[in-house]
Amino acid sequence: MTEMNPNLVVIVSPNAALKGPTKAREIIMEKGIPILSISDQPSKKAFYAKNEEGKSVPSVPDSTGFIVLPMDPMIGARKEFLDPTEMALFNAELIKLLSCTGVLRFIQLEIEKLIDGVKSGKLPDLPKITLKPEQALEAAGFENPYAYSKAFASLKMAEIVADITTTACFKEQNPDKYIPMVSAAHEVLRAATSLADEAREIEKGNNTVLRTSHSSSGKIQRKKKLLDKPQ
Amino acid sequence: MTEMNPNLVVIVSPNAALKGPTKAREIIMEKGIPILSISDQPSKKAFYAKNEEGKSVPSVPDSTGFIVLPMDPMIGARKEFLDPTEMALFNAELIKLLSCTGVLRFIQLEIEKLIDGVKSGKLPDLPKITLKPEQALEAAGFENPYAYSKAFASLKMAEIVADITTTACFKEQNPDKYIPMVSAAHEVLRAATSLADEAREIEKGNNTVLRTSHSSSGKIQRKKKLLDKPQ
Amino acid sequence: MTEMNPNLVVIVSPNAALKGPTKAREIIMEKGIPILSISDQPSKKAFYAKNEEGKSVPSVPDSTGFIVLPMDPMIGARKEFLDPTEMALFNAELIKLLSCTGVLRFIQLEIEKLIDGVKSGKLPDLPKITLKPEQALEAAGFENPYAYSKAFASLKMAEIVADITTTACFKEQNPDKYIPMVSAAHEVLRAATSLADEAREIEKGNNTVLRTSHSSSGKIQRKKKLLDKPQ
Amino acid sequence: MTEMNPNLVVIVSPNAALKGPTKAREIIMEKGIPILSISDQPSKKAFYAKNEEGKSVPSVPDSTGFIVLPMDPMIGARKEFLDPTEMALFNAELIKLLSCTGVLRFIQLEIEKLIDGVKSGKLPDLPKITLKPEQALEAAGFENPYAYSKAFASLKMAEIVADITTTACFKEQNPDKYIPMVSAAHEVLRAATSLADEAREIEKGNNTVLRTSHSSSGKIQRKKKLLDKPQ
Amino acid sequence: MTEMNPNLVVIVSPNAALKGPTKAREIIMEKGIPILSISDQPSKKAFYAKNEEGKSVPSVPDSTGFIVLPMDPMIGARKEFLDPTEMALFNAELIKLLSCTGVLRFIQLEIEKLIDGVKSGKLPDLPKITLKPEQALEAAGFENPYAYSKAFASLKMAEIVADITTTACFKEQNPDKYIPMVSAAHEVLRAATSLADEAREIEKGNNTVLRTSHSSSGKIQRKKKLLDKPQ
Amino acid sequence: MTEMNPNLVVIVSPNAALKGPTKAREIIMEKGIPILSISDQPSKKAFYAKNEEGKSVPSVPDSTGFIVLPMDPMIGARKEFLDPTEMALFNAELIKLLSCTGVLRFIQLEIEKLIDGVKSGKLPDLPKITLKPEQALEAAGFENPYAYSKAFASLKMAEIVADITTTACFKEQNPDKYIPMVSAAHEVLRAATSLADEAREIEKGNNTVLRTSHSSSGKIQRKKKLLDKPQ
Repeated sequence: MTEMNPNLVVIVSPNAALKGPTKAREIIMEKGIPILSISDQPSKKAFYAKNEEGKSVPSVPDSTGFIVLPMDPMIGARKEFLDPTEMALFNAELIKLLSCTGVLRFIQLEIEKLIDGVKSGKLPDLPKITLKPEQALEAAGFENPYAYSKAFASLKMAEIVADITTTACFKEQNPDKYIPMVSAAHEVLRAATSLADEAREIEKGNNTVLRTSHSSSGKIQRKKKLLDKPQ
Repeated sequence: MTEMNPNLVVIVSPNAALKGPTKAREIIMEKGIPILSISDQPSKKAFYAKNEEGKSVPSVPDSTGFIVLPMDPMIGARKEFLDPTEMALFNAELIKLLSCTGVLRFIQLEIEKLIDGVKSGKLPDLPKITLKPEQALEAAGFENPYAYSKAFASLKMAEIVADITTTACFKEQNPDKYIPMVSAAHEVLRAATSLADEAREIEKGNNTVLRTSHSSSGKIQRKKKLLDKPQ
Repeated sequence: MTEMNPNLVVIVSPNAALKGPTKAREIIMEKGIPILSISDQPSKKAFYAKNEEGKSVPSVPDSTGFIVLPMDPMIGARKEFLDPTEMALFNAELIKLLSCTGVLRFIQLEIEKLIDGVKSGKLPDLPKITLKPEQALEAAGFENPYAYSKAFASLKMAEIVADITTTACFKEQNPDKYIPMVSAAHEVLRAATSLADEAREIEKGNNTVLRTSHSSSGKIQRKKKLLDKPQ
Repeated sequence: MTEMNPNLVVIVSPNAALKGPTKAREIIMEKGIPILSISDQPSKKAFYAKNEEGKSVPSVPDSTGFIVLPMDPMIGARKEFLDPTEMALFNAELIKLLSCTGVLRFIQLEIEKLIDGVKSGKLPDLPKITLKPEQALEAAGFENPYAYSKAFASLKMAEIVADITTTACFKEQNPDKYIPMVSAAHEVLRAATSLADEAREIEKGNNTVLRTSHSSSGKIQRKKKLLDKPQ
Repeated sequence: MTEMNPNLVVIVSPNAALKGPTKAREIIMEKGIPILSISDQPSKKAFYAKNEEGKSVPSVPDSTGFIVLPMDPMIGARKEFLDPTEMALFNAELIKLLSCTGVLRFIQLEIEKLIDGVKSGKLPDLPKITLKPEQALEAAGFENPYAYSKAFASLKMAEIVADITTTACFKEQNPDKYIPMVSAAHEVLRAATSLADEAREIEKGNNTVLRTSHSSSGKIQRKKKLLDKPQ
Repeated sequence: MTEMNPNLVVIVSPNAALKGPTKAREIIMEKGIPILSISDQPSKKAFYAKNEEGKSVPSVPDSTGFIVLPMDPMIGARKEFLDPTEMALFNAELIKLLSCTGVLRFIQLEIEKLIDGVKSGKLPDLPKITLKPEQALEAAGFENPYAYSKAFASLKMAEIVADITTTACFKEQNPDKYIPMVSAAHEVLRAATSLADEAREIEKGNNTVLRTSHSSSGKIQRKKKLLDKPQ
């Protein structure tokens, strides 16, 4: 891939602190190619270090950016519970949640900025952030404050899915204990997605759903009323 | 109250580590009366201390028991958001959640054991525990494992309500930021309660709801089928 | 309690016409202390008498007020059906219903008026009313007329819960008959609460939920938009 | 119609005590033709009289039977609220409720008995009853007791729709008052129907829905499992 | 009926291309009485013919109009599945769907135009149309575009019910295959009706439900706000 | 890719009849590598031809297999409506639907058979089919016949999404007409997915959800009870 000599590489993976993604970043960095990593909560280990006051701060080369998504939890990876059908269901719920709550649009907008930079010859500073609910929700563009609250709640619920699956997959060895746990984690996600959907339905009921499609020139356009033209 | 010279005092309060409940326990202990404290997560400070290996362990006199309920979260106590109606709603949701998930029955059964002990002249060891979801769910008596998982999920969701309200009430000073937070916390609780209700409805659909009413002699009786006699 | 010589006593009980609450009122009245009784439908026997035209009218001393709540029904008190968990569930549903439909705020506002009177040295006339749905709903402050209608419906549904539980508890002796009845009564309440919740969700969707929190001086403040300051 | 000299006439109408249906019954009775009236709660005036002890008892000629359906309420007949669309909606909800709760099957079975009698040359005693929830629910054939309870609740809710519409249509003259009332009455019905549907869904979930179709010979056949043959 | 010499006859039937309805139209036409047929998709065979370019076009005498409703599907008429209760349920769902989506009001308005014409002495051209979703939805008068979309979706779902029941009733002979099919068809309808109801609830939440009741003079009046007078 | 000289190539694309996928198949076939194409309804043009009786039959070389999925509809690809968020939502709903209804497991099992063949040195006949609902549902493994019916209904609803989006994207040029259409198509999908989820919830309520995970040796194992071991 590095032979294509790209202006920017975006790496999306679970736990960017693992050997694989770490090696990938090293190779690309050696070639002097800017990287944006998009990953989940455990990857913070790769991107943060303690400063002198003992506070955890971003610690990556300038040419490496990252977006850590604490609301992108690990699946309940226990073979007694999972099968391809359950896995696809988990991912479907999660994609819906990340869409309704603005996480996906946040990423769209960040990548857009980078592409615009590449086009204009000057890549902007790469984002180095752990995504907060408020940032995702701003991208979502909710107008009704209760829709906003419901989506906020949905994001916090997504965060704890990982707490439960981590315990179930790495700490608990008794199937009679970890099976109900992974099952519970997926129920939390299902409820969280349902709440995110509820938030979007409120906006639909008020005809205020934000859409950010691309014009034929590639520019992002915005609209809120369903029958309006994007502008 | 101590003048009534009771065999046992049960104290229910938020944050048992605060001055008021702490003073209450001191006065009662001085009289040599056993105490059972029922309280929420922050009260762990009152009941636990680090042992030599640095591990947090129960640290109370023999005559003091406690049941810490991490699933009993603080309300979103910000005056821009709360009013008596909203407060009653929060508590109604929470009572429903604690009922459906077995927390309430766990307490019923624990107190029952103590009362039986008092009656028979020998108070048993007082419980010194932080309630785990699994313990509550065992008391709930679910037969369907997905009902169990949903109730488990509900309890984990209740736990994070406190994380959000604590931030909103004690760390964030800007109303534009903390109002959506407290509102989101209440939405998490509403979703959690709805999930607990879903669990109970599954058991109703299978006619397996556990009931533990009292016989006229005061003994707890059990039944599962709606039309059965409790026994 | 009368030794504290209060300016006003508020008595909340089921069936205020029973011996206990009646005796309590007599004792307090003898001391010349004003009373406000808050109770349910059967307590009308205590507060109303037929006038010359045979019409039922309030019939209490000036120093006794009452708020009769026909929407506060008796629980399905049959031991084959009830247990502490079921009882807590019933009460949770009912508190939610009374909150969403304005009953709770109506009481808040009435008591507030009395407290203001006590503070200013002149207790106003005590309320002598059987609460109508319309009065509760006005306190609820609904803006959307269908939310209002749904809450109205919810209150009427709450009223019939008592009809069913009364028959099941006092008239029907066959468990095979009264168990389904009490179970049905609780289902009516559950459906009624769900409808009240639906009404509140409509108002949330329009950002018009009324909140009446207290200022630090104790005055009631109002607001409708979630992010507004109460005033 | 009487010229066709039928063996039995079934008259279905609202309020069978009104002039029209009363006249119809008179004409048919004069011809000596047996009648079964199916009507709603207000029609009790036509079919019941007080006996010597002052108790209301059926009081009709032998050749007249009746089935009074207290769960078949009057519509909210106020022109500010109704239009053909709203009326069709009300009736659709009601038909669904009466179907799910067994009322419709009760009538099917009663008429079936009469037709069988006519065929065999001897009309059985005509029913003279006010339908109780328990009778309808027995016809519905619920196996799950909570489904039974939900359907029971649904029937009781249907009964109060009429209380509200009667007040709104005949007692209250102020549109600002009666419009919300009729709207609330229809919300009660909508909630009642939803509960009846919930009951049926439980039975579907257990594969125990009773079906009573006709064989080609006209005999009623029964089945419960979806893939079974009716027998 | 023709002896009453009416100005217009409206015939409502399934499949107007069958012998019965066809014969009925012939008899009435012979008397020179205008006819409006309202029927379902299969009746297109009766009203359309191919023109010279091979395109299907209306082909009926001037005195015959028709409204074909593709969203009025055949029931799942297999005796293993149907019984009077299931049939009433199917029809209840369908009436609700046709009401919420404007189909019923479209017919109301068309018939109204004809009645007005008859009254004024000149019957207007009879409608000769296959109803499109857009025409029904215009009559429904939705203001929120997502409510409109949901109702649109509901109408398209109603159309496929017939595809499934037709296969199940006429092509498939194995009960193990056609029973799940007819059951599935009814589930499509139930989901479609639920979506239509969702559309109406959005309009209720915005207080924009169109009502078209009749004035005492018989004229259609319109209103949108619940508490408004029709005009 | 062909340089890797694989035993089998699986190509997943929309409309396999388009130039791109067709070219891909040609290149791979030239190398003598077997192909399995997985695609949607319009791709039938690539895989079927009319036989002598004018019937459409599979018409591909032996080394080419295909699975056509009529329940995998085109998105509502109109820029006024779509944006990356809406697109992700559409796909999330669809993945959930295809998972719950067994489509995904059908593909899993088919591919598994091919891999087993490759491993054992003899590739079996490649599937040449247009997936029927019954085939998907058999893979889903529903035990409750109403869950089966609901999933069946969901699949039929998914099929018509494509009808609507095709019209909206290729036939209708007026945005005021095609925007509501694409929006309606997505509402059909959302309702279809919700129905598929309902089906799965019924199976969860009966503890009969089929899971087909892989053993460590790669073999597919089955289980139905949540706490069972896969076997």
